[in-house]
Amino acid sequence: MFHMPVYQFNLPRLFINAPLTEGAKIELDKDQSNYLGNVLRAKHGFELLVFNGSDGEWLAKVEADDETKRRPKLALKLSEQTRQQHAPNKLRYLFSPIKQARQDYMVQKAVEMGVSEIVPVRTDHCQVSRVNVERLNANAIEACEQCGVLNPPICYELISLLEVPEIASGEGQLVFCDESASKLDPSDALNTLNKDEMISVLIGPEGGFSASERQMLQGLENVTVIGLGPRILRADTAAVAALTAVQMVLGDWT
Amino acid sequence: MFHMPVYQFNLPRLFINAPLTEGAKIELDKDQSNYLGNVLRAKHGFELLVFNGSDGEWLAKVEADDETKRRPKLALKLSEQTRQQHAPNKLRYLFSPIKQARQDYMVQKAVEMGVSEIVPVRTDHCQVSRVNVERLNANAIEACEQCGVLNPPICYELISLLEVPEIASGEGQLVFCDESASKLDPSDALNTLNKDEMISVLIGPEGGFSASERQMLQGLENVTVIGLGPRILRADTAAVAALTAVQMVLGDWT
Repeated sequence: MFHMPVYQFNLPRLFINAPLTEGAKIELDKDQSNYLGNVLRAKHGFELLVFNGSDGEWLAKVEADDETKRRPKLALKLSEQTRQQHAPNKLRYLFSPIKQARQDYMVQKAVEMGVSEIVPVRTDHCQVSRVNVERLNANAIEACEQCGVLNPPICYELISLLEVPEIASGEGQLVFCDESASKLDPSDALNTLNKDEMISVLIGPEGGFSASERQMLQGLENVTVIGLGPRILRADTAAVAALTAVQMVLGDWT
Repeated sequence: MFHMPVYQFNLPRLFINAPLTEGAKIELDKDQSNYLGNVLRAKHGFELLVFNGSDGEWLAKVEADDETKRRPKLALKLSEQTRQQHAPNKLRYLFSPIKQARQDYMVQKAVEMGVSEIVPVRTDHCQVSRVNVERLNANAIEACEQCGVLNPPICYELISLLEVPEIASGEGQLVFCDESASKLDPSDALNTLNKDEMISVLIGPEGGFSASERQMLQGLENVTVIGLGPRILRADTAAVAALTAVQMVLGDWT
């Protein structure tokens, strides 16, 4: 039997909002058809991988209704499943929104690090006051496509920091990344946590949390404070660093 | 005695290529003077922090030769040292060059993570064939200024992967981040290394190392192979993730 590699680097990967089953034919909407035809230059017989967040990853072939047409209507025909769906990680990422370009990067990175929920949180030193959830979703999907992630995370509307305790309580631990706690060894702190519970990782704004915010967070019951080293980190760097620490000690890197 | 905070977020920070001593007056070249006047809008009496990579960080005040001039000549007068210089980390970052915009980000992130040397390495699946060392340096300096790092890393010209064994041998360990080693727990592997030796962290291109490259690297004497989890990471994400793993287990995060 041919052993399928876990990831195939050589085929493009596309998120499709439709059930995926053996032999299924999937009609594409205009955007998807344009993307395949114009960006990927896909013609009849073109191979790619598709996933929908619940039915695993499938090998698909492009079918054109009429190859002689300049812009044929494209559909997908599924052949075999290349990877099975697995449960999403119990890893929630809470962050203070930053400017658009870096936030796009940051969301993509959070997906690469395997988060299952993305929650923007308004804080006192927040750089921006609005979040475009559609854009969060688009970036999350793009990162899934590029990096072979089968579970696109759920992206939420902007919440207040005061809602964080309720979200994080009773269902696991809040990991509060506190830039003023640079001497706290993250391994030691994280090693005390339960691997099977939901972990909510909270990263502050680039100006840091305000004194009252820090006091509120430190006073919570289910909170674990960790430092992220002795240097100042940009928000997108802090995201990868904090999620690496959690994945190394509690998550799927072990 | 007033306790100076480790980092001052509220003052801009500028790298100056000149000796820094108490009371010194530093003439600025045209670029620096323009940057202060036009970007930071600095006038006579404006306060900022300066560092040069060897004399620590100093509080400085801008002095204008003639405030009535539209573009006065600016100089800096140093008052007190705000942070002492410390030894650079023994942490070398070797990477396969990527496209410019992401590489700029990646170099900045490596600096935030505390590397002391930045070494671009040509590999079989390299995306680009040339590296602009001046641009590496400029990005490294900018990250130092933004993130309060006092030791700008040394940036090297592009080397061949075949030169890596010589560079990494006899003076510590090469940590080879192998995307096909996803099941290797990085904590376990890194815990076997000596904290006092130079660690060279090697990240491959986004297409991965070639089979012959992997064979060569795995056969080295002073090599430690680590995985970076079960997902594909972009090169800049892999940089932060790998350097976080090293700093958490061996470096200044402990």
